[in-house]
Amino acid sequence: MQNQIKSLQNPKIKFLNQLKDKSRVRKKEKSFVIEGQREIGLAIKGGYSITQLYYCPSIISFEQVTELIKLISQDIEYFEITQEIYQKLAYRTTTEGIIAIAISKDLSIENFNLATKNPLILVAEAPEKPGNIGALLRTADAAQLDAVFIANPKTDIYNPNIIRSSVGCLFTNNVAIGSSIDIIKFLQLHKINIYGAALQASVNYHTQNYNKPTAIVVGTEATGLSKDFLDNTTQNIKIPMSGVIDSMNVSVAAGILIFEAKRQRNFIG
Amino acid sequence: MQNQIKSLQNPKIKFLNQLKDKSRVRKKEKSFVIEGQREIGLAIKGGYSITQLYYCPSIISFEQVTELIKLISQDIEYFEITQEIYQKLAYRTTTEGIIAIAISKDLSIENFNLATKNPLILVAEAPEKPGNIGALLRTADAAQLDAVFIANPKTDIYNPNIIRSSVGCLFTNNVAIGSSIDIIKFLQLHKINIYGAALQASVNYHTQNYNKPTAIVVGTEATGLSKDFLDNTTQNIKIPMSGVIDSMNVSVAAGILIFEAKRQRNFIG
Repeated sequence: MQNQIKSLQNPKIKFLNQLKDKSRVRKKEKSFVIEGQREIGLAIKGGYSITQLYYCPSIISFEQVTELIKLISQDIEYFEITQEIYQKLAYRTTTEGIIAIAISKDLSIENFNLATKNPLILVAEAPEKPGNIGALLRTADAAQLDAVFIANPKTDIYNPNIIRSSVGCLFTNNVAIGSSIDIIKFLQLHKINIYGAALQASVNYHTQNYNKPTAIVVGTEATGLSKDFLDNTTQNIKIPMSGVIDSMNVSVAAGILIFEAKRQRNFIG
Repeated sequence: MQNQIKSLQNPKIKFLNQLKDKSRVRKKEKSFVIEGQREIGLAIKGGYSITQLYYCPSIISFEQVTELIKLISQDIEYFEITQEIYQKLAYRTTTEGIIAIAISKDLSIENFNLATKNPLILVAEAPEKPGNIGALLRTADAAQLDAVFIANPKTDIYNPNIIRSSVGCLFTNNVAIGSSIDIIKFLQLHKINIYGAALQASVNYHTQNYNKPTAIVVGTEATGLSKDFLDNTTQNIKIPMSGVIDSMNVSVAAGILIFEAKRQRNFIG
C-alpha cells in the first residue's frame, strides 16, 4: 500500500513527531522511530519489526526503498512524503530520505538469555547523555561483547539521539535493561565476575585477569557507581590517572577497560 | 575597578557575545571567553592572562570572585552583571556565575618546546566536533601526555564548546597546533616514532612497543588519516574489531591506544 502525504497536519506525521520527541508516547505505543537506510537495515537484521516507512523521493529512489522493503518479512505500509515534511522530521535533512516506525522490543533483563559460556559484558549504570550511550554501544559492537546491560537508565534507550549516535549499534548489540539490583542478581546467578570502575578502588585495572566470565561496570561521570554495585563487585578497578583533572569521559574509560579485557583474551570471541 | 552592567545593550556585553560566538572575532582580538570558576582557575594556572571578569552576584559571592582575582598577577577589570545578562552569556545558566576574557596563546608548533626526552604524544588530525576534542583533551590530561598536537584543526581551539567539554583540560595540556606537514616535520626532527591509527593497517596496536618516543596519531571518523600522515608513519596500527559496524568513536579509539602505551610504560611519567 502506498500513499502520498503532503501536509504537515496529516495525523500520521503528527504521530511520527510525537514518537520521535516523546518517550512517554514511545512507551505507550511500544514503537519508535528510526532514521536512515543503514540504521533501518541494521534494525531489520537485529530482529526488529518495521511497521511503516516514510520516504522522500527527492532524496531516496524508490528502488532503494524497495531494497529495504524486500528485507522485511511482514506486510508494511509505506508513504511518500514531501521534502518539507522530511526536513521537519529528520535530523539529517538532506541525506538518507527515509524514516521508519519500528516496534520496541522487551529488553528487560528478566527475559535475557546469555548465548555464550565465557561472556564479556559491559554494564553501564544510570547513563544519561545519548552521545555517551551511543559511543558505548559503538565500542561494544567493535569488541563484539556478549551483552550490554543498562542499569537504571536515565534516558529511554529508543531515544532517536541514542540510535543516531550509536550509528545503529543499538540494533547490533545484545542489550538488556533492568534495575541495578536485578542486573547484579543476573550476574551473580550466572557466576560472572563483576569489575566495577571506581575512583576509590585500590587495584589498577591492568593487574586483573579478565579471561573468566567478566562484567565491566561503569557509572556516571558525576557520581560513579551506586552503593548497590560497589557492595557487590568481585573487584573494584581504576584506571591510573596522573593529570590535573583526572576525569575521563565515561565512554573512553569503558573503551580502555573493555579493550584491556579483549587484549588479554587475544581478541578472540 | 568595579562596575555594574545592567543592560544587554552594553557594548562590553555585546563584545563578550561576539567573542563567544565568532571564531573570527576571537582571532582578530586574540582573546576568548572562559565560563566557570574551575575552568578560569585552570587557565590561570596554565599561564593564561585574564583581562576581565564578569560575575553575577546572585550566583557567586564576591568572596569567591576575590579568591580568583588573587590568583591573577596583573591588574584586571571586573564587572557585576545581572542574572538576565548572565543567562544570555552562559551555558550553565544557574551555576558558576562567572565568565572571564582571556588572552589567546600562540600555540603554533613552530614555537613548541618539548620538555621530556621520551615523550608520549597524541596527534589529532582534522578534528571537528568540540565534544570529541574535549574528550581527547580529558584523556590526554588523565594520561599526563607530554603534548597534544592538533593538525589542521577544523574548529577553533578556543571555541567555548571545546573548553566546556574538556572541563578545562585545554589549559592543563601542552597543546600545539600546526599543519599536518609541520607536525610530521617536528616529530621527525625529534626522532619520535609515529604510530598512525588506520583501518587499513595490518598490525594490531597491542603488538607494538611504545616505550620509545611515541606519537599516536588519530584521524577523522569519516576519512581517517591524510595521505601526508599515512606516508610518514613509522607504523600504522589498528584496533582489532569484530562487530557488525566497526566504527569506534575517535576519542574512545585514542583512549584505547594511549592507555596501551601507558600500560607498557608502567604508567610512569
